[in-house]
Amino acid sequence: MHKVDINCDMGESFGTYTKGRDEEIMPYITSANIACGFHAGDAATMRKTVQLALKHNVGIGAHPGLDDLVGFGRRPMDISPEEAYDIVLYQIGALQAISHAEGGSLQHVKPHGALYNMAAKDPSLSKAIADAVYDVDPSLILFGLAGQELYNAGKERGLRTASEVFSDRTYQHDGSLTSRREEHALITDQETSVNQVIRMIKDNKVHSLQGVDVDIEANTICIHGDGLHALDFARYIQAALQEANINVQPVNQFL
Amino acid sequence: MHKVDINCDMGESFGTYTKGRDEEIMPYITSANIACGFHAGDAATMRKTVQLALKHNVGIGAHPGLDDLVGFGRRPMDISPEEAYDIVLYQIGALQAISHAEGGSLQHVKPHGALYNMAAKDPSLSKAIADAVYDVDPSLILFGLAGQELYNAGKERGLRTASEVFSDRTYQHDGSLTSRREEHALITDQETSVNQVIRMIKDNKVHSLQGVDVDIEANTICIHGDGLHALDFARYIQAALQEANINVQPVNQFL
Amino acid sequence: MHKVDINCDMGESFGTYTKGRDEEIMPYITSANIACGFHAGDAATMRKTVQLALKHNVGIGAHPGLDDLVGFGRRPMDISPEEAYDIVLYQIGALQAISHAEGGSLQHVKPHGALYNMAAKDPSLSKAIADAVYDVDPSLILFGLAGQELYNAGKERGLRTASEVFSDRTYQHDGSLTSRREEHALITDQETSVNQVIRMIKDNKVHSLQGVDVDIEANTICIHGDGLHALDFARYIQAALQEANINVQPVNQFL
Amino acid sequence: MHKVDINCDMGESFGTYTKGRDEEIMPYITSANIACGFHAGDAATMRKTVQLALKHNVGIGAHPGLDDLVGFGRRPMDISPEEAYDIVLYQIGALQAISHAEGGSLQHVKPHGALYNMAAKDPSLSKAIADAVYDVDPSLILFGLAGQELYNAGKERGLRTASEVFSDRTYQHDGSLTSRREEHALITDQETSVNQVIRMIKDNKVHSLQGVDVDIEANTICIHGDGLHALDFARYIQAALQEANINVQPVNQFL
Repeated sequence: MHKVDINCDMGESFGTYTKGRDEEIMPYITSANIACGFHAGDAATMRKTVQLALKHNVGIGAHPGLDDLVGFGRRPMDISPEEAYDIVLYQIGALQAISHAEGGSLQHVKPHGALYNMAAKDPSLSKAIADAVYDVDPSLILFGLAGQELYNAGKERGLRTASEVFSDRTYQHDGSLTSRREEHALITDQETSVNQVIRMIKDNKVHSLQGVDVDIEANTICIHGDGLHALDFARYIQAALQEANINVQPVNQFL
Repeated sequence: MHKVDINCDMGESFGTYTKGRDEEIMPYITSANIACGFHAGDAATMRKTVQLALKHNVGIGAHPGLDDLVGFGRRPMDISPEEAYDIVLYQIGALQAISHAEGGSLQHVKPHGALYNMAAKDPSLSKAIADAVYDVDPSLILFGLAGQELYNAGKERGLRTASEVFSDRTYQHDGSLTSRREEHALITDQETSVNQVIRMIKDNKVHSLQGVDVDIEANTICIHGDGLHALDFARYIQAALQEANINVQPVNQFL
Repeated sequence: MHKVDINCDMGESFGTYTKGRDEEIMPYITSANIACGFHAGDAATMRKTVQLALKHNVGIGAHPGLDDLVGFGRRPMDISPEEAYDIVLYQIGALQAISHAEGGSLQHVKPHGALYNMAAKDPSLSKAIADAVYDVDPSLILFGLAGQELYNAGKERGLRTASEVFSDRTYQHDGSLTSRREEHALITDQETSVNQVIRMIKDNKVHSLQGVDVDIEANTICIHGDGLHALDFARYIQAALQEANINVQPVNQFL
Repeated sequence: MHKVDINCDMGESFGTYTKGRDEEIMPYITSANIACGFHAGDAATMRKTVQLALKHNVGIGAHPGLDDLVGFGRRPMDISPEEAYDIVLYQIGALQAISHAEGGSLQHVKPHGALYNMAAKDPSLSKAIADAVYDVDPSLILFGLAGQELYNAGKERGLRTASEVFSDRTYQHDGSLTSRREEHALITDQETSVNQVIRMIKDNKVHSLQGVDVDIEANTICIHGDGLHALDFARYIQAALQEANINVQPVNQFL
């Protein structure tokens, strides 16, 4: 039977600021990427989010980001691989202790925003991140964009590595995501979106914008936790995958 | 044979800012309280400081502080016990992962500055801190001012707890430190300073400013890592304790 | 004719985090207290908020706070008068330049949260804040709780000083606000709330919880910009004051 | 008579962290670029530095940087022109108020580190910065690398613009600085260094690494405020310029 994980960024509130609809979305996902205090999140939010994930048997993941709260970690920054190693180590550690205190343990690591996107294209940054994950705990699962550098670095480091795909983004003929700055980058129709994902899971193929099929592996699907239709879509994709006889479960149960 | 630990705050540099003479002082101490990024320190500094401690077989301790970099964690702040619990957990976790990645492990936790001083007098804050330490790892040693609330909370929580004394501060008849705002708070003469400490270790007594002897236990002596005479004094106290037949070693070897 | 100003905290969003219903509330107030980047707000948010205030002819005020984003400036912190002076100067200056660039100018200064509350009771802190305001621009109006230390310090420094009252809080027989930790601190009924304010404006009296009338001056009424009923109440109080023949206008038009 | 300004970064301390030898260097410079709290500096340090500059009749300049304290504003970051505009406005304003409170006023603005270097090559970033400076006060002088984009943008905006040269850096045949990653980027010999500068001032020429002379204008020379030889070199260049009959004075006296 086919299996897939659904991951979503969680715990992005900060102090008195709230972001995301964590309580509503959590029941529909299987892995939570929890912000670790650099681009979002704070110690108290992290603990509450871990509790929520545990309540719903959702895999707990560290979601380390650049040290840029005002930019939400979305602004690329010229950091060295050594700096990446250090800040990823630090952030994973913080969440690890909080999870441990709540009786849980970490399942995975998925870098956030600009750090994730820079790593996808930069082998030395990806190596540094994979090293950091491995050095904290070699049993952690690293999430990386399907076929990109971070995914490769995880494999090379000997980590279990989850190939991440997007339901609401179109793909290029080289297997990369269409840049958001391009036309047709987003898939707004829910049915099209879920069909793309089902094909990725069952056939390991995606139809690129250029019209050719591309090989792709889909271990985990990224969905969004805020926006007007986040909850709707979370429910919709859950139901559609089950109907397609695809088991939705935390990635550590099948990877 | 009498035993004592010498602890010192370490890793208080931040980014391109340097503070303290860590490389020079580290050979003369047995436990390092490493800043964890809130009041001082950053991920890179933490890792370098852990490496330095490991090189000198110095016990690695987390030194969590208030989230106040500009005030160096020295300004009392009205935080709830729950907030204290969360920020202590977070900071210990960050250092724990870094230590682990470097092949080491944490020996102790000593809160910093205003957090340490507030906890000394506030049972609920102390309880929250002791809980955080215990919840990360019950084998960690908690440092607390001799006879004060944090020390008591550690004991009550079932943690190994180290009674900390100061060589360069005078004591009151109730066993507390003379406030720095008072006259005669500091002992500037090295010999007087070391004699006070030796008496604490051998006789469990300290002569208070009021002229009466007070019972005190001395597991670890706090020395300072910056200032003009820091290195001099570190050397001096090391030599003087050895001459007095007191073994200077990391606190986890005898507590 | 009686006159009063209605002030509200504005510009409390930060980066991608939003807080408050600024666009909806702004039409109903006459003075905006704009966060300046320490407890909330950032450079971009400040500029957008200044633009919004200018659009509605609302008086622009600096709302400097403690350097505590995660605690939203609500946690009392032991800062020296000199530190208060410096951070208030800095924050006013930042907003002043932004207002100037948008073609506006500052009307007033109202410290935020814990800084405001600490100042209300601490003459030396209040003096430092009044000095900072005066040293930036002696024509600025300082907001202070009616009859408390900041109000007094402003008067003494030679600043125009606005006496601020609350519509939704009860008062003690000494003219201070009932602490939120006490019972009956809040007035939840809109009519009672507005009647209290109208009496303050017209008769300079407030009926204290202890049953006696207390003298009070009301130059500006503080209302809240978030919460479910913020917009409702803003509309309600505007209408009620006009019906009572009280002119609602920015405080610099009548003070 | 030929005239030139000597500028140096100042006020880069932060909280309890000290950086630079401001008190020693200040007597030898004519313009101080004062950090404004984003990449370095804090409100208290800014005020002390303004006082020091006023004492020595040194031109006061805002030195706005990226919001990256741990990286000291040296790490390029992908910010939009609008974000650059906002953070420059904010930081200039903060220093302006502090200068005003101390009885001084701003002379110039020189962006720091990565912001300065990115602007040198990016016309839209440069335009945003020039706009921010102009919008705060059109009489402010903007510092820009000789012949590069920020300099051009300042001219175009109608600002007085100071062409900045380096004494200790070599130049390329297109008038740009040799990248620090290249060999021969630095000039370590004091005499060679000062001779390069004197030729720039008197002949408006610099001998490039490629062996050809390049036209260059030198209004202000950048020197460094930390490092072992900073003070030595400050003294040396002051003396050498005077001996060469070049008047060293704040840039607003001759631009």
